[in-house]
Amino acid sequence: MIKMSQLYAPTLKEVPAEAEIPSHKYMLRAGMIRKCASGVYSFLPLAKLVMNKVENIIREEMNATGAQEILMPVMQPAELWHRSGRWDDYGPELMRLKDRHERDFCLGPTHEEVITSLVENELKSYKQLPTTLYQIQVKFRDEIRPRFGLMRGREFMMKDAYSFHTSEESLDETYSVMMDAYRRVCKRCGLEFTEVDADNGQIGGSESCEFMALADSGEAEIAYCDCGWAADAEMLEGEYVCPKCGKKCKTTRGIEVGQVFKLGTKYSESMNINYTGEDGKEHPFVMGCYGIGVTRMMAAAIEQWNDENGIMWDPQIAPAHVVIIPLTETDVTDKLVSDLEAYGIEVCIDDRDERPGFKFKDADLIGWPYQITIGKRSLENNCVEFRDRRESDKKEISIDKIVDVVVNEVQSHIIR
Amino acid sequence: MIKMSQLYAPTLKEVPAEAEIPSHKYMLRAGMIRKCASGVYSFLPLAKLVMNKVENIIREEMNATGAQEILMPVMQPAELWHRSGRWDDYGPELMRLKDRHERDFCLGPTHEEVITSLVENELKSYKQLPTTLYQIQVKFRDEIRPRFGLMRGREFMMKDAYSFHTSEESLDETYSVMMDAYRRVCKRCGLEFTEVDADNGQIGGSESCEFMALADSGEAEIAYCDCGWAADAEMLEGEYVCPKCGKKCKTTRGIEVGQVFKLGTKYSESMNINYTGEDGKEHPFVMGCYGIGVTRMMAAAIEQWNDENGIMWDPQIAPAHVVIIPLTETDVTDKLVSDLEAYGIEVCIDDRDERPGFKFKDADLIGWPYQITIGKRSLENNCVEFRDRRESDKKEISIDKIVDVVVNEVQSHIIR
Repeated sequence: MIKMSQLYAPTLKEVPAEAEIPSHKYMLRAGMIRKCASGVYSFLPLAKLVMNKVENIIREEMNATGAQEILMPVMQPAELWHRSGRWDDYGPELMRLKDRHERDFCLGPTHEEVITSLVENELKSYKQLPTTLYQIQVKFRDEIRPRFGLMRGREFMMKDAYSFHTSEESLDETYSVMMDAYRRVCKRCGLEFTEVDADNGQIGGSESCEFMALADSGEAEIAYCDCGWAADAEMLEGEYVCPKCGKKCKTTRGIEVGQVFKLGTKYSESMNINYTGEDGKEHPFVMGCYGIGVTRMMAAAIEQWNDENGIMWDPQIAPAHVVIIPLTETDVTDKLVSDLEAYGIEVCIDDRDERPGFKFKDADLIGWPYQITIGKRSLENNCVEFRDRRESDKKEISIDKIVDVVVNEVQSHIIR
Repeated sequence: MIKMSQLYAPTLKEVPAEAEIPSHKYMLRAGMIRKCASGVYSFLPLAKLVMNKVENIIREEMNATGAQEILMPVMQPAELWHRSGRWDDYGPELMRLKDRHERDFCLGPTHEEVITSLVENELKSYKQLPTTLYQIQVKFRDEIRPRFGLMRGREFMMKDAYSFHTSEESLDETYSVMMDAYRRVCKRCGLEFTEVDADNGQIGGSESCEFMALADSGEAEIAYCDCGWAADAEMLEGEYVCPKCGKKCKTTRGIEVGQVFKLGTKYSESMNINYTGEDGKEHPFVMGCYGIGVTRMMAAAIEQWNDENGIMWDPQIAPAHVVIIPLTETDVTDKLVSDLEAYGIEVCIDDRDERPGFKFKDADLIGWPYQITIGKRSLENNCVEFRDRRESDKKEISIDKIVDVVVNEVQSHIIR
């Protein structure tokens, strides 16, 4: 149980001047994040609870595909990047440093070089393929103009996965399994999303797809056509005509929360890293890579689910399922907490010595999915007040039934 | 269930030349870690499974004390370190870098500066104190001579906690609660440990205690006396006489897995960060800080529990509880896996097309706590062979009873 009197969540009444979009504004106001430097944030307890949930959803879905979790280093030696040719190609977005012996390193924005050299000489036989490895880890990109809070930061959390294959067909299969896993991750984070064709950019390779959370504040322009095709508008280079059917595209905005790539042999050839085939000869690996922005996902969820009062979390990634606001002293409160917890419902109780209005404002701002108010008048009818944060009206529910109502509401949102 | 045929764990027969101590040698040989650069490692699936377990134990014990999880950035702006005076004091172990705008940053070896500035003006009233915040995060220290694998790396995983108080008495209370939590973490990781007085070093403050895992390979010398007192020998500056009773100390070796500090007002005064007291006046926070090395803990567990054949994991942090080695095709195998899993037992099955001797060697090397061999001869007696990795003899156990035996063995090790 979370007690508001103990929780370190310094909420703000004022809208911070630097925040332009809802997720940035509300994560600051709800005491979820604080800026440490431009594009570099600390995550306070409420944000960490959400982050842990998003990471667990991703971990479950990755494990379900047969991908195996690893952890690669943040510090990557320059030699690896020279070998792939990206040390010079990557430009000023790559954070670089020297150790005490003047050796060059970078802070990983992505891990193609490290993983390819990791499996060198050890993932050796075609019998071991396909294999997919993933990690959930902090990443660095020295954005020229960090902005929008977690949306475009310089230090951020990502899940990145890498798959190794003997053939394009095997890559196609894993790519399709990963696409399914990404759909499930987006749904379980409560996102409305669309899949769009994308450019392979600095990562390289032959084919790529982005998972876009639809939002007015999105930095990406999505071009889409009545024929069903959609693409990151960057790909079209100004010509908003659909390549498949010749029709003109419409546009909307999205937040890129994930991207998957068919890399082919780009890294295995440039770094000369091979497996031994059934024919006894050496072949370069066929590879895929798959990224999800964990912190970006959190921000996108807020962009899609907020109103003028604050955040409206999906129960699957909320810091807790329900907040209880007791306006009077009664045994009902403790009993309700323990009954709800017995059913696995995560409870926050606002036990602060504050006015009711102050507590309601904070509850709306933080965005707990369900609110239960225990007040004198309802208690006289053996009731409490129940509200879904995404609906405006409160309902009186009898004390006998409230646990069932909350359990059913929460369960109905959980996708397994 | 883990299938050995799918698991990315490239085991090695040869002892790698660079490895001097058992944990380094066996983590390399068992395919758990690989070096990326001097003192910088990638963690493969078996190591990540263990790391996740150690992190969860720490998280549970920290949450039980009322500490709240946060996540602070790796990249720390130099200004914060100038403010505390440590930018110049810390020396070449501090990894430094410049961003594209030539602003100075360091990669956090510890987070006193960040947390103190994080709570500045927001943890403001004495009513909010005490508060303890913690994180589990990658840390950096540019060791002049990285060695012994995870034991003295340049990039490593740590849990660090920081507590804020109005008085020394309140700090004493939290310090004592943290000491208890650390004892439980050590026990739940299966470590034999001792608590020793320590020097506050670069962290500063008035009092400090180290949690030492006893091991021949330990880099720390522990001085201890018949009177019960023990200290990090560094503290004694060559005089091995016990300060409390005047007796001469004996020495033994240990691995420092955790350290707790009473910081007092060192950081709040140097950075001028205050709370408002009951008297309405500003006062500097009294602070404590508390670190556990997650990756160091994993290495220490191996230093304490290994033999000439490999690792001997405690079931509480093992990558899985039991390995099943089927030497013949039988329905018994699948049924045993599903029965064990129904009781929450984590199972690895060695389904590889390899000789029995090869599988037994790998099982001993990786160190699964329990081994079940399903062979023709035992099956004729309706039995399987059962072995505790920490004991040498195998027992024949009837198929009816094996699930109970495994469940009881695993449960008997779990400290709640």
